[in-house]
Amino acid sequence: MLRVPEHQVAGHKAIDGVLGPLVDDSGKFYKPLQSDHRGSNEATFYETLSSIPDNIRSFFPVFHGIKEVEASDGSGLHPHLVLEDILAGYDNPCVMDVKIGSRTWYPEAAEEYVRKCLLKDRESSSIHLGFRISGLKSVGPSKQDPSSCWQPHKKFLQSLSADEVKLVLSKFVSSDGNADPDSAFACEVFMPVLKQLLELKKWFEVQTIFHFYSCSVLVVYEKGERVMNGKKAGAVVKLVDFAHVVDAKGAIDHNFLGGLCSLIKFVQDLPSGVWESVSEDEC
Amino acid sequence: MLRVPEHQVAGHKAIDGVLGPLVDDSGKFYKPLQSDHRGSNEATFYETLSSIPDNIRSFFPVFHGIKEVEASDGSGLHPHLVLEDILAGYDNPCVMDVKIGSRTWYPEAAEEYVRKCLLKDRESSSIHLGFRISGLKSVGPSKQDPSSCWQPHKKFLQSLSADEVKLVLSKFVSSDGNADPDSAFACEVFMPVLKQLLELKKWFEVQTIFHFYSCSVLVVYEKGERVMNGKKAGAVVKLVDFAHVVDAKGAIDHNFLGGLCSLIKFVQDLPSGVWESVSEDEC
Repeated sequence: MLRVPEHQVAGHKAIDGVLGPLVDDSGKFYKPLQSDHRGSNEATFYETLSSIPDNIRSFFPVFHGIKEVEASDGSGLHPHLVLEDILAGYDNPCVMDVKIGSRTWYPEAAEEYVRKCLLKDRESSSIHLGFRISGLKSVGPSKQDPSSCWQPHKKFLQSLSADEVKLVLSKFVSSDGNADPDSAFACEVFMPVLKQLLELKKWFEVQTIFHFYSCSVLVVYEKGERVMNGKKAGAVVKLVDFAHVVDAKGAIDHNFLGGLCSLIKFVQDLPSGVWESVSEDEC
Repeated sequence: MLRVPEHQVAGHKAIDGVLGPLVDDSGKFYKPLQSDHRGSNEATFYETLSSIPDNIRSFFPVFHGIKEVEASDGSGLHPHLVLEDILAGYDNPCVMDVKIGSRTWYPEAAEEYVRKCLLKDRESSSIHLGFRISGLKSVGPSKQDPSSCWQPHKKFLQSLSADEVKLVLSKFVSSDGNADPDSAFACEVFMPVLKQLLELKKWFEVQTIFHFYSCSVLVVYEKGERVMNGKKAGAVVKLVDFAHVVDAKGAIDHNFLGGLCSLIKFVQDLPSGVWESVSEDEC
């Protein structure tokens, strides 16, 4: 039985007759294969995932192939990428989708596409910050209290100033939904996030296989306890959306790397309270 | 007595009635102040240099103020920035000018300027590599032999592929002008270059004061012995051209940082012969 994902924060949603992603109860995510080159490009990318080193491959959703399933828009059977559902197993997930890179268009793109992307990059925070937040959802300690859910509007999130990003990040990891975060809690969330972002950065400093355009970093954590393999599970960083991955032709992905470093700097710059209990070595 | 610099590899040259930079015998470089906002912007930047940490300030030419001197185009007295002449004291300098960043236009620029820069970024290697080589001059061991001087055409340099960059870098540090460099010699040149680029990178990962658009990294070394303070002087990395430096507004300069990391990767990827005698710690 396929259903609409409960916690999707960016992209087309499979509601009101729109073609969008679906999930099942076994932890799989069904992403409709776009009919043009974007679909084949994303499928091809997932098929080459095995060429990526093990420690980095874990940042990508597991790929289970392509399958024809009933489309959410009622148009009948449609090929879907079958992926790991990153949010399976969460009760109260807090999710943030950050589109990385000051440039979302790739060199070989059609002029009309370049024009549209450039306009969006200039209107949003991408040109200034090297990234834009595409979606965010944060829940309070109790899921039953709807007032404790914070899901700012996309238009607001996409064009934040540097100061606003700091506020939004603080609020994303606050234990009570206020902008002044509980430092122990925020540190518990952002420590593993920072560690994972720095590991990604190391890879992007050297990899000359792919250039990732319009790709997002997804940050997910459980508001409350989440146990995995008998241990409390920490925040997770994943990469999603590979419809615009192109051949690196021998150069590093300076566009992604620059944006990633910018995001890292914001995480490191969280109000001093967040990090003050943490030693230099750990952060 | 002011004269035309002998080893300038990029920018307007003070010949044939053109307004361009001049040098004197005391080691000063006179850069005509552009009459529009670019001139005042560059002057303002040099005046704020003191706010930059000592170890990083040494990457910038020393600033000696603004002075009216006879312009090279015969138009009479014209205000010039008086700067350190980076090439003073060299006999056979090899020089490379690398314009850093995949984007050379800044967010607030006029539309016509954005359009022109974007076109140039797309036609050159900037979009793909995150930088373009704006000029290069390499001399053989003997200055008296003109055949030993290699100064490729700007059009060729600006639009190199990744493989061509590797060749050009190899040739830039070869002891005999061939693309297969003498590894000991090339290592001697590029070791201090890599060290300085990595130091710059560290600063760009954290500084949120300036965004440097259309700024260049200049790499200079002496083909032959150059003694400074009784010691053999190694290759030097400098930053030049600050007419388009803007307020960072709280974000790191992801555009410059990305391009810088791309250049660093090319230096690290020089043919294995260059680095094989060098331990991991040193490189």
